[in-house]
Amino acid sequence: VVCKNLGRTVFAVFDSGLGGLTVLRSLLDEFPDRDFVYLGDTARLPYGSKSGSTIRQYSLQILKYLVDELNPDALVIACNSASTQVHESEIFGKKVFNVIDPGVAKALEKTKNNKIGVLATRATVDSQAYQQRLIKINPEVQVFAAAAPLLVPLAEENWDQDPITNLICYRYLQPLLTQGIDTLIMGCTHYPILRESLQRACGPNINLVEAGDKLCQNIKSSVEEDSQLRAARQIKILLTDLNSQNQKLCHSLLQAHEISSIEHINLKTNHEEIL
Amino acid sequence: VVCKNLGRTVFAVFDSGLGGLTVLRSLLDEFPDRDFVYLGDTARLPYGSKSGSTIRQYSLQILKYLVDELNPDALVIACNSASTQVHESEIFGKKVFNVIDPGVAKALEKTKNNKIGVLATRATVDSQAYQQRLIKINPEVQVFAAAAPLLVPLAEENWDQDPITNLICYRYLQPLLTQGIDTLIMGCTHYPILRESLQRACGPNINLVEAGDKLCQNIKSSVEEDSQLRAARQIKILLTDLNSQNQKLCHSLLQAHEISSIEHINLKTNHEEIL
Repeated sequence: VVCKNLGRTVFAVFDSGLGGLTVLRSLLDEFPDRDFVYLGDTARLPYGSKSGSTIRQYSLQILKYLVDELNPDALVIACNSASTQVHESEIFGKKVFNVIDPGVAKALEKTKNNKIGVLATRATVDSQAYQQRLIKINPEVQVFAAAAPLLVPLAEENWDQDPITNLICYRYLQPLLTQGIDTLIMGCTHYPILRESLQRACGPNINLVEAGDKLCQNIKSSVEEDSQLRAARQIKILLTDLNSQNQKLCHSLLQAHEISSIEHINLKTNHEEIL
Repeated sequence: VVCKNLGRTVFAVFDSGLGGLTVLRSLLDEFPDRDFVYLGDTARLPYGSKSGSTIRQYSLQILKYLVDELNPDALVIACNSASTQVHESEIFGKKVFNVIDPGVAKALEKTKNNKIGVLATRATVDSQAYQQRLIKINPEVQVFAAAAPLLVPLAEENWDQDPITNLICYRYLQPLLTQGIDTLIMGCTHYPILRESLQRACGPNINLVEAGDKLCQNIKSSVEEDSQLRAARQIKILLTDLNSQNQKLCHSLLQAHEISSIEHINLKTNHEEIL
């Protein structure tokens, strides 16, 4: 409904909140000819502290909504916790890309000593998604994972250059560092916002890995190019809860990219019947 | 459905998550003859970062559910963010009690210099609920409010005796302390979990206020006693998302009280149609 007038073929990007905008940023640079619709489930975030079955329910509801409303060329799940619960490569007739596989591929490229750390939400760590996929591709690899629940609220507080953030990053990373990892997967799309603090806590010799560029390669290799040139590119943001705080965060996370609109959407739960 | 076999008249307590168990604790001590059903909306927590209209929608949906399923003697909203959006004293034919009014009454009793601080979620601070109600009762009072989004995840991380928590409490409180407050309302039901860190950051001369005992007085003065004695008292906990982490937290927050059951419930949103 909200998206009838888009000029080009659309990529639909889904996240539990706004952290996925760090992924959208990479996509925008890599696919200048596509329109983008980003749906952030801000009314129910965070997913990372919820159970796998709830996360899957929410994710399927939203992917279905995006397919029905937009008929997109591709679905991108820009949320690690959601990615762990949607294993399909095609869903509701559309190609779907997650952020786990590209992170896994990149970490395996980067590591020299085969010791890889994963910092993520509790749901992502508990799902064992990174651990299993890394070891499936390279059984030589040792994986050390830690849940870091405070990093998302720290990123949203904008304390990214703060000594308290450095302390907390170090607290979470210390058990991984003592294992001798040389590569750290930032297994939550909020974490690149805190990249400097994380790098400081790790020291300069550890590779920090995010999904962005590998994800773009995956999409390029399996989605046909859209050669039709039309009006200026559109970037629409749909949020299930809209307030001034998250509007501000949208603009600051997308930096130079101009947002066409930020709209509130209602996924139609049955509280409508009550009100 | 889940609650047909309760032996006594029921008080239904609603919170966005598990912080309201600090309120339930006071109620359990004060009303030994009542059964209690506590509903935590763990699938959609936290409410404190969401907009007022979304919080009201969720709250009404849950209050309706509790009335339909339990026919309780009283509804207690043990969540400040939800309390700011439900102003009614009766709803769906039942008496409803919030945690704002008792906190306001107690702070006004405690203050000597009429300078009161409020530490709360962003939604509660933005609603102006504490500020307006304090000043309505005593126009001489000055209120200084601050949003403290990191305190809920810190409480849930169980870092309540941690130097990092002291630092963060001090960071949030410092602007209020420089205004010379002598009383601080802990305006979120999670905050009493961090009481020691907050008191340390405030210094010993500042009164920390929570709703508990005043809330019990409010209920006592308006709900009739239930004199029928039956089987042992029941305490049921219903959660919209259930995982091992929040089960653990239930037991640790209710301390000596024995929980009859912890159950997962589904509020029936339309993702059921999809799956």
